[in-house]
Amino acid sequence: MSVVTRINSDDVAILLIDHQSGLFQTVKDIDVTSLRNNVTTLAKIAAIENIPVITTASEPNGPNGPLMPEIHKYAPHAVYVPRNGEINSWDTPAFVEAVKKTGKKKLIIGGVLTSVCVAFPSISAVSEGYEVFAVIDASGDMSTLSSQATIARLSLAGVIPISTTGVCSEIQKTWNRPEALQFAEAYSTVMPNYQAVIESFLKAETVGSSKK
Amino acid sequence: MSVVTRINSDDVAILLIDHQSGLFQTVKDIDVTSLRNNVTTLAKIAAIENIPVITTASEPNGPNGPLMPEIHKYAPHAVYVPRNGEINSWDTPAFVEAVKKTGKKKLIIGGVLTSVCVAFPSISAVSEGYEVFAVIDASGDMSTLSSQATIARLSLAGVIPISTTGVCSEIQKTWNRPEALQFAEAYSTVMPNYQAVIESFLKAETVGSSKK
Amino acid sequence: MSVVTRINSDDVAILLIDHQSGLFQTVKDIDVTSLRNNVTTLAKIAAIENIPVITTASEPNGPNGPLMPEIHKYAPHAVYVPRNGEINSWDTPAFVEAVKKTGKKKLIIGGVLTSVCVAFPSISAVSEGYEVFAVIDASGDMSTLSSQATIARLSLAGVIPISTTGVCSEIQKTWNRPEALQFAEAYSTVMPNYQAVIESFLKAETVGSSKK
Amino acid sequence: MSVVTRINSDDVAILLIDHQSGLFQTVKDIDVTSLRNNVTTLAKIAAIENIPVITTASEPNGPNGPLMPEIHKYAPHAVYVPRNGEINSWDTPAFVEAVKKTGKKKLIIGGVLTSVCVAFPSISAVSEGYEVFAVIDASGDMSTLSSQATIARLSLAGVIPISTTGVCSEIQKTWNRPEALQFAEAYSTVMPNYQAVIESFLKAETVGSSKK
Amino acid sequence: MSVVTRINSDDVAILLIDHQSGLFQTVKDIDVTSLRNNVTTLAKIAAIENIPVITTASEPNGPNGPLMPEIHKYAPHAVYVPRNGEINSWDTPAFVEAVKKTGKKKLIIGGVLTSVCVAFPSISAVSEGYEVFAVIDASGDMSTLSSQATIARLSLAGVIPISTTGVCSEIQKTWNRPEALQFAEAYSTVMPNYQAVIESFLKAETVGSSKK
Amino acid sequence: MSVVTRINSDDVAILLIDHQSGLFQTVKDIDVTSLRNNVTTLAKIAAIENIPVITTASEPNGPNGPLMPEIHKYAPHAVYVPRNGEINSWDTPAFVEAVKKTGKKKLIIGGVLTSVCVAFPSISAVSEGYEVFAVIDASGDMSTLSSQATIARLSLAGVIPISTTGVCSEIQKTWNRPEALQFAEAYSTVMPNYQAVIESFLKAETVGSSKK
Amino acid sequence: MSVVTRINSDDVAILLIDHQSGLFQTVKDIDVTSLRNNVTTLAKIAAIENIPVITTASEPNGPNGPLMPEIHKYAPHAVYVPRNGEINSWDTPAFVEAVKKTGKKKLIIGGVLTSVCVAFPSISAVSEGYEVFAVIDASGDMSTLSSQATIARLSLAGVIPISTTGVCSEIQKTWNRPEALQFAEAYSTVMPNYQAVIESFLKAETVGSSKK
Amino acid sequence: MSVVTRINSDDVAILLIDHQSGLFQTVKDIDVTSLRNNVTTLAKIAAIENIPVITTASEPNGPNGPLMPEIHKYAPHAVYVPRNGEINSWDTPAFVEAVKKTGKKKLIIGGVLTSVCVAFPSISAVSEGYEVFAVIDASGDMSTLSSQATIARLSLAGVIPISTTGVCSEIQKTWNRPEALQFAEAYSTVMPNYQAVIESFLKAETVGSSKK
Repeated sequence: MSVVTRINSDDVAILLIDHQSGLFQTVKDIDVTSLRNNVTTLAKIAAIENIPVITTASEPNGPNGPLMPEIHKYAPHAVYVPRNGEINSWDTPAFVEAVKKTGKKKLIIGGVLTSVCVAFPSISAVSEGYEVFAVIDASGDMSTLSSQATIARLSLAGVIPISTTGVCSEIQKTWNRPEALQFAEAYSTVMPNYQAVIESFLKAETVGSSKK
Repeated sequence: MSVVTRINSDDVAILLIDHQSGLFQTVKDIDVTSLRNNVTTLAKIAAIENIPVITTASEPNGPNGPLMPEIHKYAPHAVYVPRNGEINSWDTPAFVEAVKKTGKKKLIIGGVLTSVCVAFPSISAVSEGYEVFAVIDASGDMSTLSSQATIARLSLAGVIPISTTGVCSEIQKTWNRPEALQFAEAYSTVMPNYQAVIESFLKAETVGSSKK
Repeated sequence: MSVVTRINSDDVAILLIDHQSGLFQTVKDIDVTSLRNNVTTLAKIAAIENIPVITTASEPNGPNGPLMPEIHKYAPHAVYVPRNGEINSWDTPAFVEAVKKTGKKKLIIGGVLTSVCVAFPSISAVSEGYEVFAVIDASGDMSTLSSQATIARLSLAGVIPISTTGVCSEIQKTWNRPEALQFAEAYSTVMPNYQAVIESFLKAETVGSSKK
Repeated sequence: MSVVTRINSDDVAILLIDHQSGLFQTVKDIDVTSLRNNVTTLAKIAAIENIPVITTASEPNGPNGPLMPEIHKYAPHAVYVPRNGEINSWDTPAFVEAVKKTGKKKLIIGGVLTSVCVAFPSISAVSEGYEVFAVIDASGDMSTLSSQATIARLSLAGVIPISTTGVCSEIQKTWNRPEALQFAEAYSTVMPNYQAVIESFLKAETVGSSKK
Repeated sequence: MSVVTRINSDDVAILLIDHQSGLFQTVKDIDVTSLRNNVTTLAKIAAIENIPVITTASEPNGPNGPLMPEIHKYAPHAVYVPRNGEINSWDTPAFVEAVKKTGKKKLIIGGVLTSVCVAFPSISAVSEGYEVFAVIDASGDMSTLSSQATIARLSLAGVIPISTTGVCSEIQKTWNRPEALQFAEAYSTVMPNYQAVIESFLKAETVGSSKK
Repeated sequence: MSVVTRINSDDVAILLIDHQSGLFQTVKDIDVTSLRNNVTTLAKIAAIENIPVITTASEPNGPNGPLMPEIHKYAPHAVYVPRNGEINSWDTPAFVEAVKKTGKKKLIIGGVLTSVCVAFPSISAVSEGYEVFAVIDASGDMSTLSSQATIARLSLAGVIPISTTGVCSEIQKTWNRPEALQFAEAYSTVMPNYQAVIESFLKAETVGSSKK
Repeated sequence: MSVVTRINSDDVAILLIDHQSGLFQTVKDIDVTSLRNNVTTLAKIAAIENIPVITTASEPNGPNGPLMPEIHKYAPHAVYVPRNGEINSWDTPAFVEAVKKTGKKKLIIGGVLTSVCVAFPSISAVSEGYEVFAVIDASGDMSTLSSQATIARLSLAGVIPISTTGVCSEIQKTWNRPEALQFAEAYSTVMPNYQAVIESFLKAETVGSSKK
Repeated sequence: MSVVTRINSDDVAILLIDHQSGLFQTVKDIDVTSLRNNVTTLAKIAAIENIPVITTASEPNGPNGPLMPEIHKYAPHAVYVPRNGEINSWDTPAFVEAVKKTGKKKLIIGGVLTSVCVAFPSISAVSEGYEVFAVIDASGDMSTLSSQATIARLSLAGVIPISTTGVCSEIQKTWNRPEALQFAEAYSTVMPNYQAVIESFLKAETVGSSKK
């Protein structure tokens, strides 16, 4: 079961599932700021690369709350698929239909909770022949113990755990391209120390320049 | 060894092993409130869905103490199987008999300690052809290092680590069903922040309604 | 500034401030289950001892959400004082009035957030000559760093930091009284391991008894 | 040394010292995102209330890096005072001059590092008769042990440790005022779970409204 | 309130309160092994120096369980004082009597829970003119937040927080005495790494010796 | 690579490698008391069941220090095999010889450091057809990150991670045997809360008995 | 996929990727001192054993900053390969060329970030038939959650997670060799407690010697 | 007891007590690398400013081990005072004599253990009229709980807790002096992220310069 596949911007779709304000309150294995920034970064990268994005929400009119607005704001091409109560979004025919319509066979999935909204459709998709990457830090679970168990479950099922920076950098491929600055900006959101690094660099460059 | 199986309410039995007051004191990888609430939630979901539940205790007349009463309270159909000293409950013929009588080939197992009372019967059952899900946060171990080692052991043996919310949601399948409220109530027990979310929602709904 | 005062059930009032479902989501220095159980325990002890309880909420019709219902459920004699937007409840004349009406000069205060809803009225009350005990674990703050700073601030102001069990035991005074069991039950709520201790004890006692 | 003073918007000045991108990398007792958001919130509240803000930086042309730009962006009335190498900003005559010019006798001080850039001027100012509040979570230090020692040092010197929400709420005083929304927005930046609370509330209100 | 007092073996008594097996299960701010070893070490040092030791237990026939036997084993001269239900042992006349009988005016107090069984008699004793040292790590509380609040409360009351090694070393005074080895052995119990240090030293000394 | 093997007392040997006082100081993923107690417990169980034990040490005359004496004290039948500098004990012919002489094909291995002294011989033994269990908490490594990486490495190699209680209980098999008390005593060493449980039980049993 | 391979100094090359001062600031799963010391130790061991070392940096003239100088200082034979913007160094033909030129089929890879600069070339190399060891603690990632996900991803791909001491000891093989002292010195850098062990040993040996 | 004193290089002496290799192994509230680096930095700053340094060791020929050599290496003017077994170095007449000889009335004290070797002489010195600063992170204790208790004890006694960077910066006073670079180098040792900041800065300056 050696999994050595790579992600390319033209062979993947991104599925962002149940990133809702009510569910965020139950997340304990990552702080909400980081989780939300990571999801936003995935949306930004998808917009740059024109990668299909499908969102869906579990009972957005109930306590689970509305979807975080940043996704559709930064990835306006994202398609929202309502569900009819199904917890596993793969049980919603319209959702699977939307995935199939992208024509992609590699899926990047993030969601809240990891052990439910990510694990279920990931395993369903793998069983239908998709390659699935579960973005652990663009997802959240009710405890570290729970997400640790889930990483083990996903690994057993052949779903590939991955990080947000792992996804974005694998899609970016190179800094030697016109959109380099857009990528850098996206990273600085998820890595606050990197933002400070950039600020320091620009200042120091100016200092050096003025010393000449 | 790709494991992509799903849980359905009519093909599983739940085995809750040695959740005893004395053993709870030795648990260090999860707080006792969460552990106990998670087990209670499994009992409630089993009652809703009429899933067979088998309990057993290790030397309940000795220091290990009595079984937590919530299980049989919330799942009155649960069957208690006494053991004759065997640590691996799968070594107790009456226990295996009880499991076989359910006719189910998928087993959901929780217990204290994870590395003993969960790991042993899980591996035994897998070796006899059962599919086994080990509910890591409805179980407890003497240290995080110990439960981490046990998750690795279980994975190697093909036992699937899973979380309590993972089990319950996979059984629930959809919110579009009469028992939705019962499930919501059960989740709010294991996720205190979700309880607060619901309280806020109901209040806000009333506020909105009165504003119209 | 040596503070060696003791708490007696007939010389204190308990002020429970802004324990609201929306604010609970911002608490990070204590888990919500523990916080909520601690507050409930204070309410129960107040009911046993007939200690005056005053509750108040900050904008309960807005995002801060409704007051946790357990307080008035377990302490039905508690008096709710609405505020007109004031953050420091001591700035609400009706609140100070209610406190004065109790005739007590020692105040036990818990609330959310510690650094706001507890600190402000505590310091105000101290400056008007009250002895104030701030129940740190029946309160919650947005980070450990924040509550650590607040404990230091309170100490400087002569407000006495205390724990929930500290308050309850100081009020209980002795186990040699008719309400001993009620107190024991209240403690087992806030100390889940103590609940297990009691269960084990009762069982062992029975075992010993039957062995004779 | 009982300190029961309160903060009012018309009797304080805010000093923000050495919040520089290079120094941020050395901070370990708070994550950089939270630190930066807390400082930004102080700037916003200062702008709403027209509270004098004085910033200063330690060697901004060297490795310490440039000041975080958010302060002057959100508090355009802030005055920047350059230093001539002095580590204790109170050793810079122009800095003390700027403080005196505000005419305020209560100072709110945040900075990086807490044990240096906050502690030194705080103690200097106290020794000259100012009341000083050290905003522990709008500051940062190289370890938790270091900031814990510093909180003790500040307490001994009569400097009052406080949290960012403590400062802002004490200044705000009431929700019953025109700028209430601006304050709410500022809090949601420093408390990501509160942002989610607000989103859920607005949605639920709408749901309730539409149900009527 | 500057407290610069020192401890000498002939001017102190040691009070060990409610170190009972049932209460140990509720302790969360220190692991039970360390707590128990620290208490044992105090007993050993008391025996070496013939310092009066008074023990007492809260309801030892109930769930709180029996006193840990090591105290009276290693300090056979210790006096046990039963209580009649009083939570604050200073409310038990026989207990105060026993303390007075020692003739000492400095008291070293450890117990479980810190915020109850240590705090109450400590504050009572201080108010009657005793100098009191509260041995924080020979005591235990239900959470770190709770013991942190209690340390602040004790400090405000003039009770001196201290560590087990602080007490023992202050009593020992010098290594240049016949009982040096007994002290070293006692320390190696509370500091497992020091035990390894000694083992390594003795071996290395032998190696060096044989090399000559 | 599904590994569902069980451990029986007559088909295993226990290898305890480099548990030396100097190396203990470098262990950071488990406290030294727990590590040492876990190893001692393995020795005790081996003695009860007459399981072959082989010890070895890396340069015991150098800084690594002497072997912890408890192993040979509690398992006097243990065989010590000196090495000639080899880090992987499987590279020492006499060590492999000693293992072969036991005639067992299942090996239980503990050692310090996990990523060196456990990992190397475990992988070597697996490659020669042995079934190997690596007792993660009877071993120690220089960081949690390091032991986490090592658990993953071992899993990939087919070495089974296991806990000390997992090993001992799997060997014990049943409480319904003459040596039950010896096992209970051994467990109480590694689980201090279990020791307290037993003490409480025995006392409560007596109380119950006397009440009859 | 059982991986039981061993590392020998003559069949491996070491690839150290993007250990740059700017990227170090984003590392949160290991402290920078430890990370840097671990990398330095790999360089030293490579120098002792004459193992090929290839370094590379991502945009060293931009914010990512310069390569840490210790690598080339302690391993002067290391070869630096510049990249043209490629994030996966395996996408840089000159880099793959340099690897091929070493003639080794086993690769030891460390880098910053683990989930990017280590994961990508590791998986690429495995897919081309190399055996790859990912040195988790000579690498760094933006969070523990992220590196935990990455360890799982690497395991699934057949990349072997390993620790720095695991690598070095596997290369060293025996203490019975002329370079033993050089290895000991290298270890004391990554294990500060081991440095203290050695100092104690040498002193104790002298003491023993002088006692004779 | 408001303590607003400042430290100047010409009015202080630095006392470094029992920083010995054996005692380092018992330190658990700070990692040994940081502790040792902090002490080294104090030595360097003392050398730059010619501040008197007095060292002493507890039984350096026994298990406590030799003094860390860095102190006398970097502060060759330091005076070593042997003790005759006394634990409180203030009980050693020669030590007090050495302190008096410096003529300074402000003392900076670091040592291992904080609750013993720092607390005892600090309190003794305060009682004789000295102003004492206890450098908490140039000291170490056997647990966080222990050092937390000790910080409270020191505060009660009027000893001022401080951090290493607090001491050094207060002595340095300004960057506008010839030794600025020496100070910067000293700080980069204790703050590894600051070292990376400097490296990045120098590189960026060069880049900027070459761009002109």
